[in-house]
Amino acid sequence: MASSTIVPAPDTLAPADPRAPIRVGIVGATGYVGGELLRILARHPSATVVAATGRGRDGAPVETVHPHVTGSGLTLTSELDVEVDAVFLALPHGVAATVVPGLLDRGITVIDQGPDFRLRNAADYPAWYGFEHPAPELLGRAVFGLPELHRGELVRAAASRASGTAALVGSPGCYPTATLLALAPLARAGLIADLVVDAKSGVSGAGREARAEMLFSEVNESVRAYGVFNHRHTAEIEQELGILAAGTGAESGVARLDFLPHLIPMTRGILSSGHVRTTRPVDQSELDALYADAYAGEPFVDVVGAPPATKQVTGSNRARVFVRHDPRTGRVLALGAIDNLVKGAAGQGVQAFNLVFGLPETAGLEALPLAP
Amino acid sequence: MASSTIVPAPDTLAPADPRAPIRVGIVGATGYVGGELLRILARHPSATVVAATGRGRDGAPVETVHPHVTGSGLTLTSELDVEVDAVFLALPHGVAATVVPGLLDRGITVIDQGPDFRLRNAADYPAWYGFEHPAPELLGRAVFGLPELHRGELVRAAASRASGTAALVGSPGCYPTATLLALAPLARAGLIADLVVDAKSGVSGAGREARAEMLFSEVNESVRAYGVFNHRHTAEIEQELGILAAGTGAESGVARLDFLPHLIPMTRGILSSGHVRTTRPVDQSELDALYADAYAGEPFVDVVGAPPATKQVTGSNRARVFVRHDPRTGRVLALGAIDNLVKGAAGQGVQAFNLVFGLPETAGLEALPLAP
Amino acid sequence: MASSTIVPAPDTLAPADPRAPIRVGIVGATGYVGGELLRILARHPSATVVAATGRGRDGAPVETVHPHVTGSGLTLTSELDVEVDAVFLALPHGVAATVVPGLLDRGITVIDQGPDFRLRNAADYPAWYGFEHPAPELLGRAVFGLPELHRGELVRAAASRASGTAALVGSPGCYPTATLLALAPLARAGLIADLVVDAKSGVSGAGREARAEMLFSEVNESVRAYGVFNHRHTAEIEQELGILAAGTGAESGVARLDFLPHLIPMTRGILSSGHVRTTRPVDQSELDALYADAYAGEPFVDVVGAPPATKQVTGSNRARVFVRHDPRTGRVLALGAIDNLVKGAAGQGVQAFNLVFGLPETAGLEALPLAP
Amino acid sequence: MASSTIVPAPDTLAPADPRAPIRVGIVGATGYVGGELLRILARHPSATVVAATGRGRDGAPVETVHPHVTGSGLTLTSELDVEVDAVFLALPHGVAATVVPGLLDRGITVIDQGPDFRLRNAADYPAWYGFEHPAPELLGRAVFGLPELHRGELVRAAASRASGTAALVGSPGCYPTATLLALAPLARAGLIADLVVDAKSGVSGAGREARAEMLFSEVNESVRAYGVFNHRHTAEIEQELGILAAGTGAESGVARLDFLPHLIPMTRGILSSGHVRTTRPVDQSELDALYADAYAGEPFVDVVGAPPATKQVTGSNRARVFVRHDPRTGRVLALGAIDNLVKGAAGQGVQAFNLVFGLPETAGLEALPLAP
Repeated sequence: MASSTIVPAPDTLAPADPRAPIRVGIVGATGYVGGELLRILARHPSATVVAATGRGRDGAPVETVHPHVTGSGLTLTSELDVEVDAVFLALPHGVAATVVPGLLDRGITVIDQGPDFRLRNAADYPAWYGFEHPAPELLGRAVFGLPELHRGELVRAAASRASGTAALVGSPGCYPTATLLALAPLARAGLIADLVVDAKSGVSGAGREARAEMLFSEVNESVRAYGVFNHRHTAEIEQELGILAAGTGAESGVARLDFLPHLIPMTRGILSSGHVRTTRPVDQSELDALYADAYAGEPFVDVVGAPPATKQVTGSNRARVFVRHDPRTGRVLALGAIDNLVKGAAGQGVQAFNLVFGLPETAGLEALPLAP
Repeated sequence: MASSTIVPAPDTLAPADPRAPIRVGIVGATGYVGGELLRILARHPSATVVAATGRGRDGAPVETVHPHVTGSGLTLTSELDVEVDAVFLALPHGVAATVVPGLLDRGITVIDQGPDFRLRNAADYPAWYGFEHPAPELLGRAVFGLPELHRGELVRAAASRASGTAALVGSPGCYPTATLLALAPLARAGLIADLVVDAKSGVSGAGREARAEMLFSEVNESVRAYGVFNHRHTAEIEQELGILAAGTGAESGVARLDFLPHLIPMTRGILSSGHVRTTRPVDQSELDALYADAYAGEPFVDVVGAPPATKQVTGSNRARVFVRHDPRTGRVLALGAIDNLVKGAAGQGVQAFNLVFGLPETAGLEALPLAP
Repeated sequence: MASSTIVPAPDTLAPADPRAPIRVGIVGATGYVGGELLRILARHPSATVVAATGRGRDGAPVETVHPHVTGSGLTLTSELDVEVDAVFLALPHGVAATVVPGLLDRGITVIDQGPDFRLRNAADYPAWYGFEHPAPELLGRAVFGLPELHRGELVRAAASRASGTAALVGSPGCYPTATLLALAPLARAGLIADLVVDAKSGVSGAGREARAEMLFSEVNESVRAYGVFNHRHTAEIEQELGILAAGTGAESGVARLDFLPHLIPMTRGILSSGHVRTTRPVDQSELDALYADAYAGEPFVDVVGAPPATKQVTGSNRARVFVRHDPRTGRVLALGAIDNLVKGAAGQGVQAFNLVFGLPETAGLEALPLAP
Repeated sequence: MASSTIVPAPDTLAPADPRAPIRVGIVGATGYVGGELLRILARHPSATVVAATGRGRDGAPVETVHPHVTGSGLTLTSELDVEVDAVFLALPHGVAATVVPGLLDRGITVIDQGPDFRLRNAADYPAWYGFEHPAPELLGRAVFGLPELHRGELVRAAASRASGTAALVGSPGCYPTATLLALAPLARAGLIADLVVDAKSGVSGAGREARAEMLFSEVNESVRAYGVFNHRHTAEIEQELGILAAGTGAESGVARLDFLPHLIPMTRGILSSGHVRTTRPVDQSELDALYADAYAGEPFVDVVGAPPATKQVTGSNRARVFVRHDPRTGRVLALGAIDNLVKGAAGQGVQAFNLVFGLPETAGLEALPLAP
């Protein structure tokens, strides 16, 4: 479906700021996360993509792979062969871990969109991903790139970067992002006694590789659970909820997560539904105060008063969070909705990039959602 | 979009059995459940629809409302004005309860597709539906029309009907059907200590009435929760699980259900995901035996070894049930997938009708699912 | 997504007629047309599928490939290794042509769902399909299996079959079926002076092979033209319209077709929109009479008074045809809507099979469409 | 589905340019075009929406109607009650015509997104729209707001505006935009001898009003033609093609258009397929040169070498145009793809607004398309 442009529109849409932009490379630019990074960074005021790599597409104009990304003038290469200040990695798990050490050594800041630097405990990699981590010494240096939970670390990484130490960000997975934003205030308050997370994702999260089970005719007009009891994002969610709950006495409530993802017939969007039994009775006003306090001032998180629809965030870096106490059962429901490719991937990577480079956190991410 | 046929195909597709078919009326035939009843009964070997009523559509050929139901020769009427042996009611809640007594008095067997005769406790109606039940004395006579759980009662109703007492079936809701089939074996074994039911439905369950929030542009590419803590089907699920668990000592585990329905962008299908903490440790082999035992011989229930997709049952009266124990967390997952308009509504109504009239349970319901 | 059944429902749904059914083989049973043949024939009153072959799936139960086709008891084989009376071929173009001669020699009647026996002129195969036909002598024997146009030939083939000569049917393509049913009365009347056919298809027509451009995320929320000026179905349409127009003096109007197919985001359904300049002025009443006459008595064709929606025929073997004259421009519009997998493929094959075996034409094809 | 924000994100996303922005009102802000105007203008560097009106929604925060448009701080009013420099009208046809004279008198520039000022000939209004135009004297003053065809007039209107005469723009319809961009070079060259336009639209073009036939369950998995022979956009297309072809001797080829729109199951996007018989033989190189020349320098039009998919322009103001000559038939195919709500409505209105206010034509419209 590639559609090379014969008469391209002139690039009147170039970044507004011509002052020495940050030079960015995208490694693994041919998939959906790569395309989303290209789309977002093409309009970033302070960054310019100077290199994009893609397996087996050496020499192909970016537009032949991502027809909607017009005017970039970029050509895919097999290797990162120009100087860059930062790279975004969109690689299969296990691959990023092998290239990151070299990049950091060259002083290049890394935003890894994959899982290789999200987990703090090296033993989690063989357990959940089936590979021994080749650079476990970097796991402590890496920042889990969810700014709403780890902004301080990202700012510290920015300071280090300014003094010469390249930063390493493990950008969170899509399900963890939606789930953690929905549940963080409860976890931090030690309120989670028992937790079921039932999540629904659009199909783009499964990537761009040709697989028969992701054909339109298979996915459309159908819903199914998958990754039953072994979805890899479980590890991230347990890790981060565990950190939040540490010291509250409610650590066990988030330690053995019942996480069930579902594939639903849409392209973009994740809704995470967190079902919580609480460690003590709560009421709605306490929850409201908790969430208001947690997200006041957050540029991308809206706490909303009705169950959010993923369409309300499509194409944007925004998250919608909803929390409700049920007086009848005593339970609490916490919902989080995001666009899996933006706040759940590329947009979140850019948000962390902004922080690490001392830019306004919202730079390049100002677009409102596209609805309907 | 009604499309009246100018040159209709000749009705070479008439029911095969010309011997005095059972005369059926459909009251409230203009919605999706009504259309589905017309579609199924048009090919039923032993029943003939002789009347179909629809508010404000008096005199309209059925095909102007349901263009796909060709060849019926039926015209909508405002009242049920011919003799019938049975009626299917597809009416708003609260309405059926007012007309059923008269129908029964006339000796007409009633399959009510709405909720008015599903609940045994009259007090549940004001609590969940906001109306006082006008005929509470009939609640004990009504059979909850899920044959897999109440076949014996349906067969007894058939015997009574044969001796002159019209039967009354409260056909279950779509969510309860998927949920109860998934969870019944666990409930009956007293295994449910704590239960979260997170369900996903296609849009046809919301009916055919024009509502802005159900427009294609609103629903497509979006998912959202709704009916938070107050969906009316909760009452049915709690009632039936409670009956199953009665005497097991695990009654409390199903007494205060955390039920959360979601609207997803598809027309047909329900997937119910039951997340269970068990009253005691179990293993997969015990679960397999439990489900094999429960559903051996059931004509419409398949216990499957991989998470079911709703597309695998579309257009059919079949249900797919999946159960899995997680050794890591000790929890149990039970999934149920159905077509909400068939096994979740019209097909199930016909299944009960078959039993009540002493017909083969599968009559008219033989069609395999339509996939892809 | 295969979902092997652990506790299958008992086969209470077996064909009603136990008398020596016709033994049928399906060669190439793993794709969508194969699945549709299995689905339809599983409920056929006079045929039984006794063999189903699939490349590289030797020994796999049919249900692992088509989870919705339960209860068949069939296992896929690599070769057709049991005796059959008829085979349906669902093979890539060029392959069927090599196996058909052997099948016919063994006295096996062949319904070829592919294109290898649709065209009468052997030279069309290298021109449109890129291969020399290996058995051109069979092209004259083959019947173009659109019963509405070639019923006489199918009935003659039935007579020959009864006297020992296996029949060969080239079952039409999906686009030709929708297009020819819409335009046949105009062509036969010599009314087509100039013709544009602009068609829209669901994605299942592209088959079940994994291709990145058919992923849900690529197809959803998008429409595009494809096969510009070289779609292979053009040849069939020109051939059949040419036969119809022969001798009317309007042969040239259908000789160089402007046929443009589009891919739209749905699984099933084809709508063909025929834009006609007429050879002489017409009016609506003439058109109405023409179409009424053409399709009176046809069991599967409805001439309708409003533009048909493909949803009105989904899952059924029915076609809806609409014709309208525009007094303002003098042009005529002719629309045809079918389910591409049923009337456009498997259902039509079964319809021809019925005729060739002297069965009621509608046997096994009685199901009404599934809507919504 | 409205979801009022409890803890809104702080408005860190305000327009970058704080210098006296142009004050804009949106009249009829509750529909899809209104929402799209709000979305685009919220990020416009030189304009600020200061008023938004909506029937019966007086006092409602904009976000209750358009949940995705966060941070505007706007409240819907029933009347335009603050001072504005320009208004965008998104009103039913016939209504704008009654309010525009008053607005112009007050010196307010008007971008009318409806049809009331698109047609030059007052007699076309009763013929196509069923109302007598109440202000025919303004039809000559109005500019047909397709910048690619009428940029000079828009620039002249800008000059007049600067000297005190409010501008009036009739922003084109969605189908005309896609169709005219695809066909303009051919029409201007006098090449169109005969024309069929077969167009496919997403459902958002039908608006946000609750209508049963636009329910998800009705539209999904279906395609149908509508507006057969009487779609109102026909008048615009004929008018503009007629202007382009004037003096070429090929006026008749575009005078009686065969225009057929189809509704397909997607939310956004229009693809217009123009089937052309030419007035003389052409070849591909001539067409390539013609289109290169026509669109060189156009910021929003890409002439592409493969059939465009609407997904390649979703959410952006871009159009993709494709032209191809068929040596076999001698015909020419011209395709145009846009997002109906952006380039087909709100984005195009903003593009004209930019020109009329002397701003960079691309201001606020820089976003790349959202794909997948």
